Amino acid sequence: MPRYRCTVEYDGTAYVGWQRQATGRSVQGALEEAVKGFSGEDVSIRGAGRTDSGVHALGQVTHFDLERTWSEFTLLNAVNAHLRLARDGIAVTEVSEVGDDFDARFSAVKRHYLYRIINRRAHLAVDYKRAWWVPRPLDHALMHEAAQRLVGRHDFTTFRSVQCQAKSPVRTLDRLDVTRDGDVIEIRASAQSFLHNQIRSFAGTLKLVGEGKMSVEDVQAALEARDRRACGTVAPPEGLFFMQVDYP
Amino acid sequence: MPRYRCTVEYDGTAYVGWQRQATGRSVQGALEEAVKGFSGEDVSIRGAGRTDSGVHALGQVTHFDLERTWSEFTLLNAVNAHLRLARDGIAVTEVSEVGDDFDARFSAVKRHYLYRIINRRAHLAVDYKRAWWVPRPLDHALMHEAAQRLVGRHDFTTFRSVQCQAKSPVRTLDRLDVTRDGDVIEIRASAQSFLHNQIRSFAGTLKLVGEGKMSVEDVQAALEARDRRACGTVAPPEGLFFMQVDYP
Repeated sequence: MPRYRCTVEYDGTAYVGWQRQATGRSVQGALEEAVKGFSGEDVSIRGAGRTDSGVHALGQVTHFDLERTWSEFTLLNAVNAHLRLARDGIAVTEVSEVGDDFDARFSAVKRHYLYRIINRRAHLAVDYKRAWWVPRPLDHALMHEAAQRLVGRHDFTTFRSVQCQAKSPVRTLDRLDVTRDGDVIEIRASAQSFLHNQIRSFAGTLKLVGEGKMSVEDVQAALEARDRRACGTVAPPEGLFFMQVDYP
Repeated sequence: MPRYRCTVEYDGTAYVGWQRQATGRSVQGALEEAVKGFSGEDVSIRGAGRTDSGVHALGQVTHFDLERTWSEFTLLNAVNAHLRLARDGIAVTEVSEVGDDFDARFSAVKRHYLYRIINRRAHLAVDYKRAWWVPRPLDHALMHEAAQRLVGRHDFTTFRSVQCQAKSPVRTLDRLDVTRDGDVIEIRASAQSFLHNQIRSFAGTLKLVGEGKMSVEDVQAALEARDRRACGTVAPPEGLFFMQVDYP
């Protein structure tokens, strides 16, 4: 049975999230329908990361197995034709046939996310639902300084959802950079894996630092508290983009 | 009577265009309603450029007069509060009080537009309605070379809509640069003023050059023909962004 790896882009606004759920439309479900639409096969598609409702992806990576073999070219065009018909806001940007030892989730060695803040008095128009609107001026240099306290191997209990199902709260955060270009503040996060709501918890906390409501030392103390109640606030999903997954 | 200059951002997807029309909702009309909503005054708002239906703006500039004087801060917040209530995809990003010799349209010395193409096999998801999707590979270097034949003072009859109301087809094009970053091709155009559909006519013609269906010499010949039928094709509105207007 051939296995296919697909890179997927989506606008998460209209979805309950990546994962199939009892109610509501998921990205995973929409993709599985598109694959069935052209191949006639029922597939179970696995993604590298489970994004929440409203979170976007430019480079989610998935895999699935099919009975029949298709060329990469045909598979990409056929799945996309079905996705376009359904006007789903989902597109497959790359397809490759891989060995059956490839697993989109478990083979991943690094995941890269971007969190976008637009920091200006005016609400969002062109970027509506594609960034977090923060009207109060933010000090991005201070946010970056605080972010560096979070980089490294830590118990991130403070920064994970109480619903997080991971067995351990310990993760190694490789990068958490805050930069500004005009009104746009970008937070770039990289790690082998993240906890549920970890990046949105970082973004919400760093926003309080940018506003002067938390200090760099407060962030350090929040991390060390290992207590969810020490987290600043959880940033909304629409600013988060799943950018890229690295494999060996 | 105080005069106000407002910079306006909008997602043009849901509008008949900038200008008020007999049927359909215009950006101008939505803005006038928002100003009336907080001030109670009927105003006529003038814009620096008349964008078509589906064309976006990050830096449209407008002016209008009010009976009563407001602080710039209050005016920006009050108009935006009404725009947000109406969920209009329009935001006022800057306000300043100006002298009554300022005219958003006639005082402008340069207008800057961006035309975005996304050049890849997969259709658009996150950038849906915010770029022109071109699946066939484009040679952007050749597009840039052809674009340079259009820069300067010319009779642009070939590149204007037959509905264009300008008295003269002669314009001075200061800049027409084509660059690529990954899948995204950006065409940046600057001039004191443009003819109706001029940039979309450039973009559509340059796309044919990028595909190898027109040569650089063909573009030169099309310009010299001064004949609308020599224009390649008109690119769709969703790739066009009105970026900035310069004043003395």
